[in-house]
Amino acid sequence: MVLSYFLLFLLASAAAAATGVIFRPGRWYEDLRKPGFTPPNWVFPVAWTYLYLSVAYAAARVAPLEGSQVALALFAVQIALNTLWTPVFFGAHRLGLGMGVLVLLWLAVAAMGAAFLRLDPIAGLLVLPYLVWLSLAAALNWRVWRDNRI
Amino acid sequence: MVLSYFLLFLLASAAAAATGVIFRPGRWYEDLRKPGFTPPNWVFPVAWTYLYLSVAYAAARVAPLEGSQVALALFAVQIALNTLWTPVFFGAHRLGLGMGVLVLLWLAVAAMGAAFLRLDPIAGLLVLPYLVWLSLAAALNWRVWRDNRI
Repeated sequence: MVLSYFLLFLLASAAAAATGVIFRPGRWYEDLRKPGFTPPNWVFPVAWTYLYLSVAYAAARVAPLEGSQVALALFAVQIALNTLWTPVFFGAHRLGLGMGVLVLLWLAVAAMGAAFLRLDPIAGLLVLPYLVWLSLAAALNWRVWRDNRI
Repeated sequence: MVLSYFLLFLLASAAAAATGVIFRPGRWYEDLRKPGFTPPNWVFPVAWTYLYLSVAYAAARVAPLEGSQVALALFAVQIALNTLWTPVFFGAHRLGLGMGVLVLLWLAVAAMGAAFLRLDPIAGLLVLPYLVWLSLAAALNWRVWRDNRI
C-alpha cells in the first residue's frame, strides 16, 4: 500500500461521501413507507465511513501491482456511480432511476472485487462488505420504490 | 487504445453526464444574475459530450501503458468530483460549495493531464480543452456566486 494512492482514492471517495452530507434524508425520507429491515439512520454514515476507508485501502494495495489497470478503471466506474446515487435518490427523489443506478453500481463493484481478488486476495476480500451493503441498499431502494408509487 | 478501457471510462463519464440530465438549469438558473461571457444553454451539452468522449479516449490510450496507475487514480478522482458538481450547483443550489468542488476538480484534472502527458503526449493534449472549459466554468460559478448573494 502506498500512502499517496490511498489519499487519492480517499479523495475520490470523499466526493461520493459529500453527497450524503449535502442531500440528507430529511422529512421526505421519514414519511416514506419503508420495509422492516430498514436500518436506523445512524447506521448509514457509520457503514459508509468504514466502506469508503476500507475500499480506498484495498485499491491502494492493488494500484502499485503490475496489471492493475482494469481494476483501477473499475474503481473509477464505481466511485462515479456511487457519487451519482445519493443525489438521484435523496436529491431528485427519483426512486426508479436510483434503482437502475444501484444495479449498475452493484455490477461495477462485483467486477472490481473480482479484479482485486486476482491481484491481491486481501484487497478482494475487503470489497465483500461493500457488495453486501449494496445488496441491502438495493433491496431497500426496491421496496421503497415499490411501496411508494404516487 | 483498447476498446474495453474506452467503454469503462465512458461508463464512468456517463454517470457524471447523467447528473446534467437529471438536474436541469430550469427556472432557478434563468433567474440568476449571470456575467456577459455566459455561453448560451445549448453550448453546455455539446461541450460536455465532446469532453467526456475525448477524455475517455485519452484515458483508454494511457491505461494499457506501464506505470499508468497514478494517471488512472487521478481519473477516478476527477470523475467523482465531476459527478458531484452538478447536483451541488443545480440540485442543492449551493453556489459557494460548487465553487470549492470546481477548484478541486480543476486541480485533479490538471494533475491528470500532466500524468497523461508523461505517458502519451496525445492523451495529455486531449485533456487541455477540459481544463480550459473548467476554467470558464469556474469563472462563471464564481461570478454567479458573487452576484447572487441572498
